[in-house]
Amino acid sequence: MKRTLGTCYYPEHWPESQWAEDAARMAAIGLTWVRIGEFAWSRMEPTPGQYDWAWLDRAIDTLIAHGLKVVLGTPTATPPRWMLDRHPDMLALDANGHKRGFGSRRHYCFSHQGYIAECARITTDLAKRYGARVAAWQTDNEYGCHDTTVSYSDAARHAFRDWLAQKYQSPAALNRAWGNVFWSMEYADFAEIDLPNLTVTEANPAHAMDFRRFSSDQVARFNRVQTDIIRRHSTAPISHNYMGAVVDFDHFATGADLEIATWDSYPLGFLSDRIAASADHKRDFARQGDPDFQAFHHDLYRAVGAMRSGRAASGGRWWIMEQQPGPVNWAPFNPDPLPGMARLWAWEAFAHGAEAVCYFRWRQAPFAQEQMHAGMLRPDSEPAPAYHAAAEVAQELAAMPDVEHTTPPIALIFDYASAWAWATQPQGRGFDYFNVVFGFYKGLRRLGLSVDILPPSVTDLSAYKLVLAPAIATLPDALITALAACPSALIGPRSNSKTPEFSIPNPLPPNLPGLDCVVARVETLPPDLPVPLAQGGTFHLWREKLEGSAQVIEETTDGWPALVAHGGLHYLAGLPDEVALARILTRLCAAQGIEAAALPEGLRCRQSGTRTFWFNYAAVEVTHAGHTLPPAGVAWD
Amino acid sequence: MKRTLGTCYYPEHWPESQWAEDAARMAAIGLTWVRIGEFAWSRMEPTPGQYDWAWLDRAIDTLIAHGLKVVLGTPTATPPRWMLDRHPDMLALDANGHKRGFGSRRHYCFSHQGYIAECARITTDLAKRYGARVAAWQTDNEYGCHDTTVSYSDAARHAFRDWLAQKYQSPAALNRAWGNVFWSMEYADFAEIDLPNLTVTEANPAHAMDFRRFSSDQVARFNRVQTDIIRRHSTAPISHNYMGAVVDFDHFATGADLEIATWDSYPLGFLSDRIAASADHKRDFARQGDPDFQAFHHDLYRAVGAMRSGRAASGGRWWIMEQQPGPVNWAPFNPDPLPGMARLWAWEAFAHGAEAVCYFRWRQAPFAQEQMHAGMLRPDSEPAPAYHAAAEVAQELAAMPDVEHTTPPIALIFDYASAWAWATQPQGRGFDYFNVVFGFYKGLRRLGLSVDILPPSVTDLSAYKLVLAPAIATLPDALITALAACPSALIGPRSNSKTPEFSIPNPLPPNLPGLDCVVARVETLPPDLPVPLAQGGTFHLWREKLEGSAQVIEETTDGWPALVAHGGLHYLAGLPDEVALARILTRLCAAQGIEAAALPEGLRCRQSGTRTFWFNYAAVEVTHAGHTLPPAGVAWD
Amino acid sequence: MKRTLGTCYYPEHWPESQWAEDAARMAAIGLTWVRIGEFAWSRMEPTPGQYDWAWLDRAIDTLIAHGLKVVLGTPTATPPRWMLDRHPDMLALDANGHKRGFGSRRHYCFSHQGYIAECARITTDLAKRYGARVAAWQTDNEYGCHDTTVSYSDAARHAFRDWLAQKYQSPAALNRAWGNVFWSMEYADFAEIDLPNLTVTEANPAHAMDFRRFSSDQVARFNRVQTDIIRRHSTAPISHNYMGAVVDFDHFATGADLEIATWDSYPLGFLSDRIAASADHKRDFARQGDPDFQAFHHDLYRAVGAMRSGRAASGGRWWIMEQQPGPVNWAPFNPDPLPGMARLWAWEAFAHGAEAVCYFRWRQAPFAQEQMHAGMLRPDSEPAPAYHAAAEVAQELAAMPDVEHTTPPIALIFDYASAWAWATQPQGRGFDYFNVVFGFYKGLRRLGLSVDILPPSVTDLSAYKLVLAPAIATLPDALITALAACPSALIGPRSNSKTPEFSIPNPLPPNLPGLDCVVARVETLPPDLPVPLAQGGTFHLWREKLEGSAQVIEETTDGWPALVAHGGLHYLAGLPDEVALARILTRLCAAQGIEAAALPEGLRCRQSGTRTFWFNYAAVEVTHAGHTLPPAGVAWD
Ligand SMILES: [Zn+2]
Ligand SMILES: [Zn+2]
Ligand SMILES: [Zn+2]
Repeated sequence: MKRTLGTCYYPEHWPESQWAEDAARMAAIGLTWVRIGEFAWSRMEPTPGQYDWAWLDRAIDTLIAHGLKVVLGTPTATPPRWMLDRHPDMLALDANGHKRGFGSRRHYCFSHQGYIAECARITTDLAKRYGARVAAWQTDNEYGCHDTTVSYSDAARHAFRDWLAQKYQSPAALNRAWGNVFWSMEYADFAEIDLPNLTVTEANPAHAMDFRRFSSDQVARFNRVQTDIIRRHSTAPISHNYMGAVVDFDHFATGADLEIATWDSYPLGFLSDRIAASADHKRDFARQGDPDFQAFHHDLYRAVGAMRSGRAASGGRWWIMEQQPGPVNWAPFNPDPLPGMARLWAWEAFAHGAEAVCYFRWRQAPFAQEQMHAGMLRPDSEPAPAYHAAAEVAQELAAMPDVEHTTPPIALIFDYASAWAWATQPQGRGFDYFNVVFGFYKGLRRLGLSVDILPPSVTDLSAYKLVLAPAIATLPDALITALAACPSALIGPRSNSKTPEFSIPNPLPPNLPGLDCVVARVETLPPDLPVPLAQGGTFHLWREKLEGSAQVIEETTDGWPALVAHGGLHYLAGLPDEVALARILTRLCAAQGIEAAALPEGLRCRQSGTRTFWFNYAAVEVTHAGHTLPPAGVAWD
Repeated sequence: MKRTLGTCYYPEHWPESQWAEDAARMAAIGLTWVRIGEFAWSRMEPTPGQYDWAWLDRAIDTLIAHGLKVVLGTPTATPPRWMLDRHPDMLALDANGHKRGFGSRRHYCFSHQGYIAECARITTDLAKRYGARVAAWQTDNEYGCHDTTVSYSDAARHAFRDWLAQKYQSPAALNRAWGNVFWSMEYADFAEIDLPNLTVTEANPAHAMDFRRFSSDQVARFNRVQTDIIRRHSTAPISHNYMGAVVDFDHFATGADLEIATWDSYPLGFLSDRIAASADHKRDFARQGDPDFQAFHHDLYRAVGAMRSGRAASGGRWWIMEQQPGPVNWAPFNPDPLPGMARLWAWEAFAHGAEAVCYFRWRQAPFAQEQMHAGMLRPDSEPAPAYHAAAEVAQELAAMPDVEHTTPPIALIFDYASAWAWATQPQGRGFDYFNVVFGFYKGLRRLGLSVDILPPSVTDLSAYKLVLAPAIATLPDALITALAACPSALIGPRSNSKTPEFSIPNPLPPNLPGLDCVVARVETLPPDLPVPLAQGGTFHLWREKLEGSAQVIEETTDGWPALVAHGGLHYLAGLPDEVALARILTRLCAAQGIEAAALPEGLRCRQSGTRTFWFNYAAVEVTHAGHTLPPAGVAWD
Repeated sequence: MKRTLGTCYYPEHWPESQWAEDAARMAAIGLTWVRIGEFAWSRMEPTPGQYDWAWLDRAIDTLIAHGLKVVLGTPTATPPRWMLDRHPDMLALDANGHKRGFGSRRHYCFSHQGYIAECARITTDLAKRYGARVAAWQTDNEYGCHDTTVSYSDAARHAFRDWLAQKYQSPAALNRAWGNVFWSMEYADFAEIDLPNLTVTEANPAHAMDFRRFSSDQVARFNRVQTDIIRRHSTAPISHNYMGAVVDFDHFATGADLEIATWDSYPLGFLSDRIAASADHKRDFARQGDPDFQAFHHDLYRAVGAMRSGRAASGGRWWIMEQQPGPVNWAPFNPDPLPGMARLWAWEAFAHGAEAVCYFRWRQAPFAQEQMHAGMLRPDSEPAPAYHAAAEVAQELAAMPDVEHTTPPIALIFDYASAWAWATQPQGRGFDYFNVVFGFYKGLRRLGLSVDILPPSVTDLSAYKLVLAPAIATLPDALITALAACPSALIGPRSNSKTPEFSIPNPLPPNLPGLDCVVARVETLPPDLPVPLAQGGTFHLWREKLEGSAQVIEETTDGWPALVAHGGLHYLAGLPDEVALARILTRLCAAQGIEAAALPEGLRCRQSGTRTFWFNYAAVEVTHAGHTLPPAGVAWD
């Protein structure tokens, strides 16, 4: 596989006279890809039905003429102002019932049929006109960004009722599934069912959960309209650029309709804005980003990129479509990255299997919402640090022969529906599925381990020695079978604790083959009330009272079972802190002959094919395993 | 008086085949009471006007057949979905004007006449059908829970205008009473008056205060419709289950229409969610609950339960209708209670005079909103800890002969209207009437004292040696007279500082007979700026500048009078911290010959008739007065 | 110039029988001015078109008869309730689209033509009737208070579209200016443009910024309607009472239509509620107020008061119209001022050039919203501390001959549009223009320096040796020329970083004559990540990467230029902390022969004419320069 670089470019933002020079400079530093078009609807179709393709023809001509490959985006994330006159009710409403209006982007409801038809129309036009010329496609832009997966509009209400009718067939079946008898919440007709916002106290969690499932399905449906059209007119692969830390819709589901998964990686913005971490951690890594956040997404999107082809997760096709180049504009604080990070981030992506890394954006725009977002060029067209970083990576890539990927010994299951489940019913403040799973992932990475992330639909885990499946609300039967067949599996806490209808199952969880234990009850713990484990470390936030005859491997100091097992099947009865998790993972790895040893603070590694890559996220020099890495240093064996 | 136990049961949630076994198990462990029906409207009347009583007949038959007594709830807290089609405007609106919709519970506005008529109809049906068979009634469920006392609907607006017209008779009188000349806020017609939400800056506090009074009256009126009907068809006593820490309506007013006051006691949830306490305190008592919060409500509801009969407050009839059995689902964190607490809580209620304690609920529901709320049984029908606790208490009750209540030497006045007054006009962030009064109550309890809580309508205090009346906005004349006749009374801070019209009185407060002192001005203090008292401790948050010739008993270090007196009448010029309060109370008790001595941390006692009960809320063993109590320990002399 | 005292009085709040005694007492303690009328519309015009002037005639008669001078306010901040029936759409809407209703004050949208016409009518009536009798006028009351500058009403929407059409002439020009191509935000018609609220993510900052400019213009337009009318009927000077810390509209713009600027000074409320300061600072000065906040506003309003006359800023006419007399009612906490502060505050205002200081209010109102706000008299008409303080100041004024003002050597530019710019685009949480400029002002004051504050329209700085112009988004050409001509100027950070269209300029900022440096990029820093300067202190929150050949005077420890210069023109590349700022200012002052030395904590001085005044804001005695000042002490040389 050839590794390549690229950038995001907006010819419509710049005088046409500048395009050729821009293209020449891109090519000169070794870029391959240029993504264009995804926000340009008002220029493609300035008034309804009257197209202006001439400028886009010339822009694509110019880029191709300089040897660049074009990724063309459908412009459906930014409907022009006139669209609102045609479809006044196309806007999403927020949970308070307020319209989310025109004036920025993503101002549409995924359930609005009229808008979907407009998107189909512009996509058809684009696919027909450019299907043979572009090298790849992108649908829309960052589905779900700015909390746009969920809408409380009339269109959503009607579509939700229809979705429920399809799923349950009768109101009586829905009432039974949701337990609506509980507070006289029973419905006599699907038309009586409202969206679960603005209730007096919390809505039925089964109601809320179905609304989240529905909302996710609407995104996949919206995306599929476009991919179906594009494929009729183009053989170029289709991608979507997912936004990091967005879990409101199931990326595996959209992934099934796309050849390539891409994601937009803004390490400093994410650390500042979207990661649950201590103040010290945020300060120590403010100019580098969290040392595991990018890797987690790389491994996740590698799996998402394998959904359509049916390849192994370790071989999924994926890119970074937008790579942070310097300070961004949207986080609470926007520091300058440490010199070298724009190179490190690219190499880390390649080490995790990326096909391409595109820096966002070519030139900093001096106007509009993102004027304070760095580019590869400054607004005055002088090079910014990422310009030089990209040139350096391009040269390094040229010198390094491609490697094939191998499958690591460890896998971690990631289940979007569980993110919705625990957002619906955290039971303790801060119980957040992403952070729970990310905590286990960090635990593995701190031990120097490489990981495959897998969807819950996986049925064959035979490639792995150890599989983790924490906090999955409902374990599919096939996954239970596969986990039971693993040499070693770590399940829990909270795994398999809900039926598909979002009830507590009977028999009680975890209900795993051969493992005689039930979760008699659970408790959530304030931050200052962790429960110590007898062997060190603590459970925090969440723990369970297990009963049964399963072998007890670890206990809490107050004598509750903490880790139980039956053969290779392990169940963990709480959320372990760093110390407890390191011990537990080390023991499980040792039992499977997997090498695991704590890395120095901020150092991370990735085994990729025959090479081991090392990345120093620390702000200080680190020496380990024969390498001395400066801050932002990259090394490989 | 016979002390009994019970539980809350929802036959409509379970297969009919399970009812008999459930009833048998309840009886077997010694339960007496089963509350049913309060959320079952959609099963009693599945479609408008078409009743289904058969299942309820059989459920009641089954319970009675097993020797259990039934408390039947009117189902008016959960109108079925079809009710909304009949009365689309019956929903409450929140302060932002958003509808509080269907999908959970308490989705109605107390002022909606159409809904009140529907409630009268179903109550009539229930009272006629079951009036002779049930042993007690409950109206609705937890009035005011989920902030539902106040509504900003059209129904509320119209009712409020009418209420104002009745009260003031002319707009001119209202303008004078409210001081509407202040900012040209004068009205020419009652129809011009809006609810006090969505004003540019704060509304006139007199306006806000009248709206709170009105909102409280609407609850009492709503409740009285049901009690009037039930009494026509049944001689069984009528109760309502108040929710702890809800002070938005006057419980004494609804109490006047009820034979029994009950309350729903969730010690861990309340500590986590609703008590102003230090982080250390919350951590130390996370598994036990605040050591005074339950007792305060016990004493309060004993008084509420005396309103209708006119008995002395010490002899009011009251129950716990819902007793926390294990972890709940609704607090920010939901830890498991310390083993033994489910027993301690019950015994503490009995020590304070409860007739019955009912655990909520019989079996944990595996579905809907409260699926993570523990029960006496697990969802798989196995016993949970509260099942065993109840059985243990039942046996202990059988062994302990009844005792008569005695009146303690100390009383504390609790005035709901003052809670509204200071919520309307805190003057300093965090000045909260409940917490102010609760602070004085804790001060008494830390000294081992038992207390009667009394309504502000009390006119005879001759049974008490010491009466506290802090922060009562307007002292009724009769209460002032009674306080002045007490051997000792502690009044202030902020007591009697408002006229009934919510103005500053002239003469200035406190205006007490014989006590020559006026509050020249007041100040509110940030948490880091307490004012030391000369004898130790501080005033925090609130203090007053007193002028006049009254005898100064204590001073602040900057020379302001802190405590003044005329005979037994004491006025306190600020909010004392724990140290200052302990000294002041100790001195007042000593003067009246009341024994008072600081108890060990977490230990509490209650004198009840001839017995003294001891309760150890601490997480460690405590030895005191010849008793050694383990954590959660209970002892009696 | 004669210095005078006054008070704010509401005859409509009190029985007419009390007026004469009130007036006599005012005169007796030496007050000159009485402001009346500004909230009395419902008494002037109880029903539409039916006036009642008799009471106001008599009130004015009474005051004048006692030798007092009347400032008459137009009552337009409090339209009566009947106004809403005539103009139901006159209310402002908040950013969520909720009506800001009747029931307090300032319930109008500045863009509503119907309400403006009503204001013109009542102003005409007042001006005609009282134009010859009153000594001064006040328009409305505290424009912008309670966040009322900005409204999202239909009236505002229509007016904004018209304002944009006037400014840009064509939608295409607007699209170019705003960069609307960015996210397909282009408009085909001005009627398509909405207000910038309720967008999915942030609106185009150019859109938001134009809306803020428009909103400010609407205030000036509203005010001008009244001043034009008053001048036709009266020669008395016209004022408006600005509220401290309100920067939502351009006070210099309204100032151009007013003879006198006044402001409402509530030092304790402001410190508690509106100043970004450490908890320690807030505690240490809780009873005194911030030692610089009042002085800053004094200097600011001196400049605002010079706008119409064209006088030098140092000679502008200004008053304090409302001086805090004791505890107020509206801050989170409302402590009692230290004894002496009511005198200190008045003397400090006079030292900064105030013509008059009026205490708010004569008598504490026992009713309505401000009943907990102290007055000069208690509600029972007994003197409160401010009564005595005013009497003392009156006597001291009588003993002190007037002094002429001199121009200090230092000026600081204050630009309201920059406050809107950085509120629109902070880029780092907490980057707030007022606090940035106030930080520089405090730095000067801690060195004992007196300062003129100047508008950005200033073109002649020849009177000053040192001029500071930090964080001005767009420096006008004439100001750049004037700064370049100064002996010394300190510009930056962030100065001149935006075009008038709110884009990044090309060439990059700061683009100052002769200074070869560009801001290559910027970063914002979390509070725990300041950047040390090589010579001590730090940059916090904001810093810039400067490139170019300009002389580097200071560097950060990581080697970025921190302060560069070309001749007297200095550019600062970050926000200095106290230590760094003191050093930089000391160096600049030394170079210009300006004496500067750090003052003791809490002590401040002001050079006024031939006198130096000293003010002790500390809660402890301070000795300095031959003066020993007690807490709240005032001294002069
Ligand atoms: Zn709203
Ligand atoms: Zn309940
Ligand atoms: Zn004011």
